[in-house]
Amino acid sequence: MAEKLQGIFTPNLVPYDDQGDINEGEFRRYIDWLIAKGVHGLYPNGSTGEFTRFTPEERKRILGIVADQVRGRVPILAGAAEANVKETLRACEYAASLGIRAVAIVSPFYYKLSPASVYAYFKEIGRNTPIDVTLYNIPMFASPIDVPTVQRLSEECERIVGIKDSSGELPHMIRMIRAVRPNRPEFCFLTGWDAALMPMLLVGCDGGTNASSGVVPELTRRLYDLTMSRRIDEARELQYDLVTLFDTMIYQAEFPDGFRTAVNLRGFNMGRGRQPLSDKQQTDLTALSRTLQCLLASQGFTDEPIGGCPLPAGSGPVGQDVTVIVQTVVAELKRRGLM
Amino acid sequence: MAEKLQGIFTPNLVPYDDQGDINEGEFRRYIDWLIAKGVHGLYPNGSTGEFTRFTPEERKRILGIVADQVRGRVPILAGAAEANVKETLRACEYAASLGIRAVAIVSPFYYKLSPASVYAYFKEIGRNTPIDVTLYNIPMFASPIDVPTVQRLSEECERIVGIKDSSGELPHMIRMIRAVRPNRPEFCFLTGWDAALMPMLLVGCDGGTNASSGVVPELTRRLYDLTMSRRIDEARELQYDLVTLFDTMIYQAEFPDGFRTAVNLRGFNMGRGRQPLSDKQQTDLTALSRTLQCLLASQGFTDEPIGGCPLPAGSGPVGQDVTVIVQTVVAELKRRGLM
Amino acid sequence: MAEKLQGIFTPNLVPYDDQGDINEGEFRRYIDWLIAKGVHGLYPNGSTGEFTRFTPEERKRILGIVADQVRGRVPILAGAAEANVKETLRACEYAASLGIRAVAIVSPFYYKLSPASVYAYFKEIGRNTPIDVTLYNIPMFASPIDVPTVQRLSEECERIVGIKDSSGELPHMIRMIRAVRPNRPEFCFLTGWDAALMPMLLVGCDGGTNASSGVVPELTRRLYDLTMSRRIDEARELQYDLVTLFDTMIYQAEFPDGFRTAVNLRGFNMGRGRQPLSDKQQTDLTALSRTLQCLLASQGFTDEPIGGCPLPAGSGPVGQDVTVIVQTVVAELKRRGLM
Amino acid sequence: MAEKLQGIFTPNLVPYDDQGDINEGEFRRYIDWLIAKGVHGLYPNGSTGEFTRFTPEERKRILGIVADQVRGRVPILAGAAEANVKETLRACEYAASLGIRAVAIVSPFYYKLSPASVYAYFKEIGRNTPIDVTLYNIPMFASPIDVPTVQRLSEECERIVGIKDSSGELPHMIRMIRAVRPNRPEFCFLTGWDAALMPMLLVGCDGGTNASSGVVPELTRRLYDLTMSRRIDEARELQYDLVTLFDTMIYQAEFPDGFRTAVNLRGFNMGRGRQPLSDKQQTDLTALSRTLQCLLASQGFTDEPIGGCPLPAGSGPVGQDVTVIVQTVVAELKRRGLM
Repeated sequence: MAEKLQGIFTPNLVPYDDQGDINEGEFRRYIDWLIAKGVHGLYPNGSTGEFTRFTPEERKRILGIVADQVRGRVPILAGAAEANVKETLRACEYAASLGIRAVAIVSPFYYKLSPASVYAYFKEIGRNTPIDVTLYNIPMFASPIDVPTVQRLSEECERIVGIKDSSGELPHMIRMIRAVRPNRPEFCFLTGWDAALMPMLLVGCDGGTNASSGVVPELTRRLYDLTMSRRIDEARELQYDLVTLFDTMIYQAEFPDGFRTAVNLRGFNMGRGRQPLSDKQQTDLTALSRTLQCLLASQGFTDEPIGGCPLPAGSGPVGQDVTVIVQTVVAELKRRGLM
Repeated sequence: MAEKLQGIFTPNLVPYDDQGDINEGEFRRYIDWLIAKGVHGLYPNGSTGEFTRFTPEERKRILGIVADQVRGRVPILAGAAEANVKETLRACEYAASLGIRAVAIVSPFYYKLSPASVYAYFKEIGRNTPIDVTLYNIPMFASPIDVPTVQRLSEECERIVGIKDSSGELPHMIRMIRAVRPNRPEFCFLTGWDAALMPMLLVGCDGGTNASSGVVPELTRRLYDLTMSRRIDEARELQYDLVTLFDTMIYQAEFPDGFRTAVNLRGFNMGRGRQPLSDKQQTDLTALSRTLQCLLASQGFTDEPIGGCPLPAGSGPVGQDVTVIVQTVVAELKRRGLM
Repeated sequence: MAEKLQGIFTPNLVPYDDQGDINEGEFRRYIDWLIAKGVHGLYPNGSTGEFTRFTPEERKRILGIVADQVRGRVPILAGAAEANVKETLRACEYAASLGIRAVAIVSPFYYKLSPASVYAYFKEIGRNTPIDVTLYNIPMFASPIDVPTVQRLSEECERIVGIKDSSGELPHMIRMIRAVRPNRPEFCFLTGWDAALMPMLLVGCDGGTNASSGVVPELTRRLYDLTMSRRIDEARELQYDLVTLFDTMIYQAEFPDGFRTAVNLRGFNMGRGRQPLSDKQQTDLTALSRTLQCLLASQGFTDEPIGGCPLPAGSGPVGQDVTVIVQTVVAELKRRGLM
Repeated sequence: MAEKLQGIFTPNLVPYDDQGDINEGEFRRYIDWLIAKGVHGLYPNGSTGEFTRFTPEERKRILGIVADQVRGRVPILAGAAEANVKETLRACEYAASLGIRAVAIVSPFYYKLSPASVYAYFKEIGRNTPIDVTLYNIPMFASPIDVPTVQRLSEECERIVGIKDSSGELPHMIRMIRAVRPNRPEFCFLTGWDAALMPMLLVGCDGGTNASSGVVPELTRRLYDLTMSRRIDEARELQYDLVTLFDTMIYQAEFPDGFRTAVNLRGFNMGRGRQPLSDKQQTDLTALSRTLQCLLASQGFTDEPIGGCPLPAGSGPVGQDVTVIVQTVVAELKRRGLM
C-alpha cells in the first residue's frame, strides 16, 4: 500500500506570460523554490491553480510540467476534474502515466447536486480509476460532500484514499474522522482552510492543502512542525499571524489574485490573471500589494516597500482597524456565498 | 438593427445514444418537433442543455447541428461560455459564423465573483464580440449579475442586447427593466423561471427561456399568447398547471433529469444522462416517469400509463398531498443552495 | 360565517412621544387619516408596528386605542403573538373582547423551528382561539410556514381563515392557493411584499398587508383597484413607482425607520424609534428624508424639500444610479439574511 | 476590578411542573447538582434556558431562584435581554440588585440589524448598565455581532467585559481575540459551540457556555481541565465523544428538547416544554431518549435502558450509520438556518 498522504501540499498557482499563456520558465523556477522552502508536496490544478480557467489541454500541460520539474522530490496530488466522468477518468489515466501519487477530484459543480448524486459520481470514479483518489470538498464553490457520503465511499472504494476539505468547519472534520478512521486508518484528511490549520491538526487532520503555503512555505511548514510536536503556544502565535495574512490575501481581492500578488512579492512574476479586472480593481490590487508587503516584511519574508510601513503591521488594534473591518465583513459575505 | 428577441426560446436538451454520445438523429427530430409545436426560438448549450457536461468540441458540434437543422426557421440563441474570455470569444466567433442570432453567456461560475469582476468580464466580451450577446443571470449556479451591472453594461456595450434571468424574482425583474429600458428600449428581458412566467410577462418581460417549453411547447406557447393578449383568468389557470408540472420536473429529480424523463414521454429517446445515478435514483426516476405521465395525460399530452392514474392528477388537495410536501420542502432547499 | 378578508390592510406604525412612550393623540390622528385615505383595514402589532419592541401591556394598549378609534369603520387584523401559546391565547381573547375581526400570529421566532413544530404551534392555537386567526409567514424573521403546513392547518382548523405571506415569492403563493383554495374557498391570502403587490393580486391573492400603505395609502389603494379591474398597463406603471418608493424605504434604513421617516413627511410626528441609532445613522436618516421627500413630491404627495430636487426623482437612469446601486446590493443582502 | 470570567458556565434549563409553570423545587435541586458536579458558573435565561418563552416576570423569578440557591458558591452570568433598551436596563439593574456577577445580552433579534445598529444598541446599554455586560453573539438566531463591533465596544465601554460566541467558527474567534486582547487583556471570550470546545480553548478562549454541561457537567469539566493542562490526546478523545453526544442532543430534536430529555435521564424531572409537539414528535422524543441513554450509559453516566443497547454506542461505523446520516444532514440544515 502506498504511503499515507500527510503534511502540507501546496495548491500551486500558475504564472502567466504576456500573452496570458503558461509561463513555463517561471513556473519551473517557482516549483523548485517551493520544494526548497520545505513544502511536503505539490497540488497543481486545484482551485488556487485556477483549473477552471484553463482548457483541458492546458491542464494536461500543467501536470506534465510539474511532474517533469519535481522528478520525485515530493509527492504530487493532481486536480483531475473534467466535464464528465469519462473525461475525468481520462485525466486520471494521464496523471497515472506521469507517475503522480494521487489525484484530487472536486465534487460536481455548477449544478448543485444532492448527496445521492455526489455519491454516484465518486463511486463511478472510484470503481474505474487507475490512480489513488482524494475527494475534494469545497462547499463554497461545489456540491457539498457530506459525512455519510465520505463514510460510504471510504468503505466501498479502496482507491479513494482521502479527503481534502475546504469548509473550515472543525466539527465537520471531527465527524468525518470519527466516521471513517476506525475502518480505514490510512485514509487521509487534509484541510484547505488556512485560518484553521493548527486546530485542524490538533483534532486529528493529517495535513493541509493551503494556498498560503505557496506564499510563505516557511511559515506553514513551521506551523505544521510546531503543532505536530505539541508546542501549542508557539504554534498559536504563528496561527494568529497566518490568519491575518490569509484574511488579507483571500478577502481583499478576488480569489486567487491576493495570493498571486503576494507571490510576486516573493520574487516571481505571476503575470496578469485571466479573469479581467476593472480599472478600480487594478488600483486596489496595487494598494493590496503594499499592504501585503508590509505584512510579509514584518515577518522577515520581504523588505518593506519604499516609503516604509506606517506601523509595524499587525502590531495592535490601531493599525488593524480598517483591515479588520474590511476583512470581517467581506469574510462573512464570502462564507455565505454572496461574493 | 436586428429585431428584438421575444417570445419563448426553448433551452433544448440533448439526446444521448447508448455510448453516451450525442444522438444526432434523435436530436434533429426533436428540433423539428419543437419548431412544429410553436416555440419562438431555440436555445442550445444552456443549463438545461447540460453545457458543462460536454467538451468544448461537443458544444461546437451541438451548435452546428442546431443551426443546420433549424435553417432559419426560428432564431437561435446559443450558449457560449467557455473556460476564459479568450475561449468564450472564440465560441462567439464560431456562433457568428453559423449565422446564429445571438449568444447567451452565463456569469462566471465556480468562483463566486464580485459585481466588479462580473462587470469586467462582460465588458471585455462586449467590447470584442462579433455577435449580439445576452447576459445570463442564474444566481443558483453562477455569480449573480446585479442591477447596476446590467444597467452599466447596457449603457456601454451596444452588442449586449438583453438578459436572461433565472432568479425568478419579480421585484428584481422590475428593477432591471426600470433601470435599463428608458435608455435601451430594444434591450430584451427573458425569464428563465417557468413558475413565474405569466406574472413576469405582465410586469414587462419580453419572453422566456423555459425548460418546460421543451416538454410542453404547446402549453407554454398558449400561456404566452393568452398573457400577451391579456386574457388574465385563462392564463392564470394555465400558469397554475405549469407550476405543478414544473415543480414535479425540477424538484423531484436532479436537474435536468426530470425534464429528460418528461421528453421521453413525448416520444423521444433521450438516453441515459452523463451524471451517474445510484440504483435508488434510477428507481425514483421510474416512479417519477409515472407521475409525470399522469400529469401530462391529464392535460391531453400523453395517454395515461398502463394501470391508469389513481386520481386525476392535480384535481385536488388529496391527490396532491405527497407531491406538494416533497416539492415544497425540496424547493426551499434548492432555492437556498442546499441541493 | 364572517366575511372574507380582502383588500389592503395597513400594518400601522406607532408614533412615540419624547419619552419614547406611545403618543396616543398622534396615533389616533394617524388612524383617522389612514381610513380617510381609503385603506381597507388596519393591522396593528405587526412587524411594521414593531410589536417586539413593546411590552405585553403596551401591545394591549395599542390594540385598545386602535379598536376605540376605528369604531367599526374598517376591519382590524391584530398581531397577537406572545412569549408562548398560553400568553398568545390570552392575547387572542383580549382581541376578541374588543370586537376585532381577526388576529394574525407570526410563526415562532428566535428559535428556528421545523415544519412539524410550526404545525403543532398553530394547531394548538387553532384549537383554542376564540377569534379567527390568520397565519403570518415572514421567513426573513421567523420560522418559515411551508405549503403542506398551511394546507393541513386549513383543513383541520376552521378558525384559521387565512395567511399573510411576506416572502414575496410568486410561485410559493401559487402553490399555497392551489393547495388550499379548492377545499377552503373563503381562506384568504394576503401578501406582505409591496414590491410584488400587482403580480400577487393577478395570480390570485385577496389583498395585502403592505407597509407602504401606511405612507401612501392613496397609491396602494389605486394600485389595488386598477389591478382588480384588470387595467394592467396603468397598474404596472404604479407598481414600478411603488417598487422605487418601497426599495428606498426598506433598504436605505433599518426597518421600519424608512417608513417612519416617510410618514413624518405626510404630516405626522412619529418621534424617535426605540432602537438606538449611531450618529452616522441619524445623519443618514436625514439624507434619506430628503430623498423620500423628492420621491413623494414627484407623485404629488408632498412639496419638494427646500432647495428643490436635483432631478425629477425616478425620471430616468441618471437620477437613479446611486439609489439603484445601494438598493439592489442591500436588497440582496437583506433577502439573504445578512442585514 | 472584578475577576475575569473563565471556565464552563452552564446555560441551565428550567424544569416545568404539570401546569407548565416553573418547578421551583426541582430547579433548586438541579442547581445544586450542577455545582456539585463542578461547573464553574451558571448562566440562567440563555437560549438553552428558553428565555423567550417566559414572560418578563418569569425571567425575574428565575434569576431570583438561581441567585438565592447559589448563594455565592459560583459566579452567575444572567441573560438580561428584554423588549427594548429601557426594559433591558431594568433587567440589568435587577440582576445587579441580586449580586449577580455579570449579565449576557443577546444581540437584537427578530429584525436582522446591521452592524451599525448592533453597535448603537450595545453602546447605549454599555453606557448605562450598573453591572458588567458580556455580549452574546448567536448568528443562528439573532443579528450577528461582527469583529469591528466587538473591538469598538471593547474600547469604548469598560463595563462590557466579554463576549459569548455561539457561531462555532474558529477563525472568527481568532480574529476577535487578536482585535481585542492587546487593549483589553481581561476581556473574556467564551464559546457556546460545544462541538468545538477543545480547539476553541487551544486558540485562546477563556471558557465556554455549553449546553452539554447541563447534561454531563463531569465530562465538560474534565475536557476543560485536560485541555488547559495541554493533555491534547486525552482531550481530543473526550472532544470526539462530546461531538457525538452534542450532535444527538442538538440535531435530533427541536432545541433544547434534546438537552431536556437528557437531563431527565440524569435524574431530574424537566416536565413538558412550552412549545407544543405533534404526536410524531412526542414519539420521536421517546426514541431519542433511548438513544441518549445508550450514549450516556456508554460513558458511565447512566444505566443502559431496559432491553439493553444493540451495540456499544459510538463504538464504530456500523452502529453509527443512521445517527451520522441524520445528524449531518440536519446539522447542515440548521447551520444554514433552514430548521
